Order: sequence, then C-alpha cells, then structure tokens
Amino acid sequence: MTTERTRRPGPTVRTRVSEHRGEDRIDREDRLITEEPLEIRVRVGRLEPRRAWVTMRTPGHDFELAAGWLVNEGITTPAGLTQVAYCTDEDLNPEQEFNVVTVSVTGAADLPHRHVAASAGSSACGVCGKDSVSEALVTRAAAPWAGARPSADVVRRLPDALRERQSLFTKTGGVHAAGLADADGTLLVVREDVGRHNAVDKVVGARVLAGDDPAAACLVLSGRVGFELVQKAAASGIGSIVAVGAPTSLAARLAEEAGIALWGFTSPGRSVSYC
Amino acid sequence: MTTERTRRPGPTVRTRVSEHRGEDRIDREDRLITEEPLEIRVRVGRLEPRRAWVTMRTPGHDFELAAGWLVNEGITTPAGLTQVAYCTDEDLNPEQEFNVVTVSVTGAADLPHRHVAASAGSSACGVCGKDSVSEALVTRAAAPWAGARPSADVVRRLPDALRERQSLFTKTGGVHAAGLADADGTLLVVREDVGRHNAVDKVVGARVLAGDDPAAACLVLSGRVGFELVQKAAASGIGSIVAVGAPTSLAARLAEEAGIALWGFTSPGRSVSYC
Repeated sequence: MTTERTRRPGPTVRTRVSEHRGEDRIDREDRLITEEPLEIRVRVGRLEPRRAWVTMRTPGHDFELAAGWLVNEGITTPAGLTQVAYCTDEDLNPEQEFNVVTVSVTGAADLPHRHVAASAGSSACGVCGKDSVSEALVTRAAAPWAGARPSADVVRRLPDALRERQSLFTKTGGVHAAGLADADGTLLVVREDVGRHNAVDKVVGARVLAGDDPAAACLVLSGRVGFELVQKAAASGIGSIVAVGAPTSLAARLAEEAGIALWGFTSPGRSVSYC
Repeated sequence: MTTERTRRPGPTVRTRVSEHRGEDRIDREDRLITEEPLEIRVRVGRLEPRRAWVTMRTPGHDFELAAGWLVNEGITTPAGLTQVAYCTDEDLNPEQEFNVVTVSVTGAADLPHRHVAASAGSSACGVCGKDSVSEALVTRAAAPWAGARPSADVVRRLPDALRERQSLFTKTGGVHAAGLADADGTLLVVREDVGRHNAVDKVVGARVLAGDDPAAACLVLSGRVGFELVQKAAASGIGSIVAVGAPTSLAARLAEEAGIALWGFTSPGRSVSYC
C-alpha cells in the first residue's frame, strides 16, 4: 500500500565542528540528527486531502509516523487506512517534497474539527490539536491488555536491549528511541526520532503497516514518560511501559487508571515501579 | 500587574513506589514532577478572551510562561502586555482553576488565526499553531545580539552553574531547565519545567514581567537543542546558546542564519561549537 520515493533526506547530516577538550581545540567532522518538518494530510474517501498536523521529526519511516499518529490519536483504526503516500501537489516547494505525507482513510467522515487545518503539532507532542484543557485530558483507551507482562528481571534488561539498536543515537547523541517488546523481552520493533512522541507513533505505525496488532506487552522508552506517551500507549492497548527516565505526576495517574504497569529509572541494577 | 492566588498545585507530588535494586525490593515514598495542562487565553483590548494554546507544563511561574510564550511567538511585544491573570470563568471546573491563564494585550488586533481556538500545543512545542511546513519554518528574529558573548571558559562552567539551581530536578529527576546568563557567566534567571520549551518561555517571561529586556548574552539549556528553541532564542535577541545535549540539523542551520553562537555537549571538560 505504500509508495516511497528514493531521494529522501537521510536521518543524519554531516557538519564541521570545533571541539574544545581541556586546552585543546580540535576541528573535525560531526554528525547531527536530521530534524525536518512533516506535514500530515488526511484524505477521507474521495474528498480533497486536508492538513491535519505538522511535526518536527527525523526523516525515515515517515509513513509509519503518519499511520501511527492517526491511530494513536483515534482518527482512524488500522482497518480504516487505505493508502499512505508522499504528496504530489505541484504547488509544493521541491525542498519540501518529502515533508508532506497524505494518508487516505475510510470511515472517518467525523474527522474532528481540531484535526483540520488550524491545528498543528511539534516533535514532542501529544496534546497538539486539543482545543482546551478538558479535551487535552481525554484518553482514547483500547481494550485493556489481557496478556502476560514482563517480569522484573525482563524489565531491567529492556533498556540495554533498546540501546543496542539505537544506531542514530550512537552517531549523533541527539535522538530518542521507542520499542515494542514481548513479555519475554524480545523487541518486536525499534524506532528513533528527535521527538519522543514521534518514536512511539512510529513503532505503532510499523506494526499497523505490517498488518500486525499494535497492542503489545511492553513499550520501552529511552527517556522520560509524560502524560501524552501514556495516552498513546492506552490508545494502542499497551500493557506496560518501561522507561529509562522519570514519569510525571499525570503520566503515573493515567497509567494507574488505564491499568498500565509503569516502570521508571530502569537499568540493569535498578527499576522503580509506579503502579 | 499580576494577581496570583494561593491554592495553586505544587511543582512536585508525593507518591508510593516499589524500588528494585539487585535482589532487594524497597517500598518507599517518592516525588514526581507535577505535569498539568495550561490553557492560555488572549484578550485583545476589550474583546472576549480567546483560547490560544494548551500546553502540558509544571505549575509555577504560569504568568511568566504565558507572557514569554506570547512574546516568543511574536503575538505581542513586552510593551503590549497589560495584564496576566488566572481565569475566573464560572463555567470552569474548579480542578482547572489554576490551569487557565488569560493574558490581556494591546495592539495585537492581528492575532493570527492559527493562534485562535483551534490551534494548540504541548509541553515541548514551538511548532504548535503552525498550519503548514512553510509556516513552521518562519523565524521571528529580533535585532541580532550586539553585546559580548561568553568565552569558551565561561561556556564550560555554565551547565554546572545551571545544575546547582535545578532544585526540582534534584527532587524528581524528571524536569528540564533553562537559564539566561550574562557574558561573564552570571545567571540572571533559571526556570524548570517538564517541557523544555516551556522552560525557555518562562525565563523570557520572567525578564519581561520584571520589566527587563529579555535579550541576553546566553541561553543555557539542560538538554538538547531543537529548531523551535533556536526560533525562540532568535525572537528574544539571544546571542549564544549553551546546551548540555546535542543540537539537531535544523537547529544548527537556524543558529548560523540568525547569528547565534551554538554550543552542545557542554561540560567542564568539553564543549562542541557548531557555529
């Protein structure tokens, strides 16, 4: 169902830097993580595509990002996705050719007003497109996770397993990662992005576009856990969240309410369980 | 000009956790960083206030966050701010009493459509409210910084100086910080927030509400540097950015274009200069 082109921007760019170490100055080449805007347009049936969101993201897996975002935001279901493609609008600046993705969906004639044109997002954003405080706090929960959850031993191994697959982080030091894992700790998919929320949308989108159920025993995160990440996990039917960093107050409260097991400050020697 | 009330939610909340260390399990109390939504409404002249943005933020310095956001987004100038107050709307859920701030401004009759009602934000967001890729990339540059910039020695001292004042990070491990500094390394103001962008809006808002010029020799950041943070720095006339983490490709490009000196991976023994 996807048709990606070939001249896409890469996930890293080369640059010249001056590094100061003690008294020394070293001029050398460095790699930066690529950050580019992505505009997601939604086409409902035969209607004209409408702008739904703009996010700063790392190019790569753009179709997964778009599909995962639509599913995690409750705009469509996996079954409602019919096509994902780069935009071929002739008015588009050629530089932005790979920065606009159109997702075609069925059965979403009720595309909420907040997801049309005037709403927009960011690279670390799950509240975007919410008109008010009350709307921002809405949770779209899938059926609660009914399968096995990772044991405390598995939990503490997950961040290292994720780290081994963070190749863009190794090159740039400037990018987050998310992974979906089985209860035995097997990583099903890992994605990296400048935006923590994008990485979560990408792993869910990867499962959806592969025809797999995005629900999973465990979501593994390289950083902190904010409310919006738990919102996304709840929408996809995730059973547990294992994070390297700290959760926020609202993240812990929502995880409790949604029946999601939440672990923070996770490393081989330590983990903290919040609910 | 500000009228803050007293029953505001605190910046941290207590919770019970189970910590696993090696074979041991310790049940203890912990502190989480508070994350709550903040809705910013803008009142132009005598018109009814209109919803402009929703962000997840750490309560505290809410008026600074609202004022700094309006200035950094180019919606108003410091001179255009006339009042900042918590909303007294009787329809408001009492729980959200301290989560809605109204900013009154003059001379902003051209409040862009994108900042009215249907646009919204997040805790780490500067792209929010942008309708399209081209709009997301617009930069609102103030006059370029004409003063002194910190030396390489001062640069490498700044992250530790910031860290000493990150009291919420010490308690929770889950919060970012931003500071504005003189060229000699003196920190003028430091603020912490779950959202990196909010912390930057807060330091700029703190200067503005105190009647000081938000332009400064240096913006110090506890984390990475994304495009949106450089956008905000450019809007406030910042001369240098010193970050503990990595910059992104677009952040480095914009800093170069805006004449902002950009340092990443900064610590007492090391710093990397990107432009």
